[in-house]
Amino acid sequence: METKITTPRLLDGIAIAAGIKTEVAAEVRSLGLQGVTPGLAVILVGNVAASEIYVRSKVKTCGELGIYSEMLTPPDSITTDEMLELIAKLNDRNDIDGILIQLPLPSHVDTRRLLEAVDPSKDVDGFHPINAGRLLAEGYSGSTSSKSGKLALAPCTPAGIMEILRRSDIEIAGKNAVVLGRSDIVGKPAASMLINASATVTVCHSRTKDLAKYTREADILVAAIGRPGFVTAEMVKPGATLIDVGINRVTDAAEVEGFFPGNEARAALFAKRGSVVVGDIHPAAFAISGAYTPVPGGVGALTIAMLMQNTVTAAKARRG
Amino acid sequence: METKITTPRLLDGIAIAAGIKTEVAAEVRSLGLQGVTPGLAVILVGNVAASEIYVRSKVKTCGELGIYSEMLTPPDSITTDEMLELIAKLNDRNDIDGILIQLPLPSHVDTRRLLEAVDPSKDVDGFHPINAGRLLAEGYSGSTSSKSGKLALAPCTPAGIMEILRRSDIEIAGKNAVVLGRSDIVGKPAASMLINASATVTVCHSRTKDLAKYTREADILVAAIGRPGFVTAEMVKPGATLIDVGINRVTDAAEVEGFFPGNEARAALFAKRGSVVVGDIHPAAFAISGAYTPVPGGVGALTIAMLMQNTVTAAKARRG
Repeated sequence: METKITTPRLLDGIAIAAGIKTEVAAEVRSLGLQGVTPGLAVILVGNVAASEIYVRSKVKTCGELGIYSEMLTPPDSITTDEMLELIAKLNDRNDIDGILIQLPLPSHVDTRRLLEAVDPSKDVDGFHPINAGRLLAEGYSGSTSSKSGKLALAPCTPAGIMEILRRSDIEIAGKNAVVLGRSDIVGKPAASMLINASATVTVCHSRTKDLAKYTREADILVAAIGRPGFVTAEMVKPGATLIDVGINRVTDAAEVEGFFPGNEARAALFAKRGSVVVGDIHPAAFAISGAYTPVPGGVGALTIAMLMQNTVTAAKARRG
Repeated sequence: METKITTPRLLDGIAIAAGIKTEVAAEVRSLGLQGVTPGLAVILVGNVAASEIYVRSKVKTCGELGIYSEMLTPPDSITTDEMLELIAKLNDRNDIDGILIQLPLPSHVDTRRLLEAVDPSKDVDGFHPINAGRLLAEGYSGSTSSKSGKLALAPCTPAGIMEILRRSDIEIAGKNAVVLGRSDIVGKPAASMLINASATVTVCHSRTKDLAKYTREADILVAAIGRPGFVTAEMVKPGATLIDVGINRVTDAAEVEGFFPGNEARAALFAKRGSVVVGDIHPAAFAISGAYTPVPGGVGALTIAMLMQNTVTAAKARRG
């Protein structure tokens, strides 16, 4: 008997995102022939530097794909009621298919209430509970089947995970999938989608005992816990598919060397910036995997592409 | 070292249901002092014998607990539009806190659309996707914490499971819970609630490979697949808590003897009725469990009590 040693396959989020964007651009052109231009409104409250960068890059991508976009920038002092009015106006406008409220919002506004005020059919972030419920019940807008034909807009990060798996021909049905983390925007919806794709799904979290017992059995492991390099090589099954959702900034030189021993490119990056970005999965675990999403350039690279796809899906459902 | 042999604890659904009903009756009296009488409307379409029995028993329990109830019995020929009108009227009435559409409906009406037409705050069956989404996000109305204070009405069967576990002081947090079945009304919401109660949760289903590998590790095993005696003693961990949601009618004499060897009471019941009811878990598995819900007299006995509790919860949220 021969032991088969294979090189882990890098699941290139940037390339997959590019493919999705190309498809979305084609759909936008086709909608254009019917006189429909999908429209996205982004609400950016106050002056949070990171949020501004994200929003600018979303607006820029809209432009590239032919999606109309509008950026609303109310001041930090805006009240919940004023926000509700803003959202109501966007809900009423026929030219706006998607409404995105960039988070985090100032602490004096009621974020949950605002997210629930967005018309679910325009909820391109997939944060409305009715979309979470539909997602759990019947899969998401990108899936091929739907029990009711009702639109379930999925949150962008887990939707991106499913696109990576599907476009990389990684079998899901009948596989053992383990999700680390139970957040409302990643862990839980990822579990919902994997269950509907017929994986056997285990949701682990901070209260899980003997975590490695679960992770070592995973054919597909999704890590979304926000702890740098938490999943070590000893915790994964050789040949598994590793999906790393973590984006953690590491500023300690010894830690960086631990994650990337002898990696000159990372060392140089660290020397230049004083930090590097590391996922929740240790690079040594990637080395024994069958396939993995790198950080950066993996799941994170899909987010904006999925937002664009959701916007077009919403436009088609509303006006197509 | 001594091996501790304990007798499995029978989790008595009938007794637990009686306790819940007593509490609900007290709440109804307390609401009465504020001039509020909780009201439940039950829609029973056509003449399905089993449905009539269920509805009658729901209406009867309302009477016992002081809940106002109303039974609407449109003919089998009712259209989706006419049903929508009926539901809209009930949504508008302030004296009606809960609306229950008894299923199944005739095939010519759009069941999904009707269930989504029920005001989520009156959705005492917990079938509206917004309640499924809230349940996944933040737990259910019976739980002690809620992120938003928004009402999440949980489907009655999984809510009953949680009541059995909690009222029997069975620890959930940090335990390994395995749910067999991924239906929208039992498996998925049970998983949602167990995740929020901090169990590590695995959802298994027809596509799961090597099912026994999962079930044998379960501290809490919930079986909701509708296959008589499917979970055998070899498939469970000795001392586990077994929650049996199955209600399967067995009509074969040899099969009955296989489930209940030498059990004279069951044999007599079978001789009299030509069938007995068996859960999804084999009685031999109960024998090695730490605790289990019998069939009948387990989870099924909670359903109506939970419906009553949901009706009062809805009344308090709307008018309390």
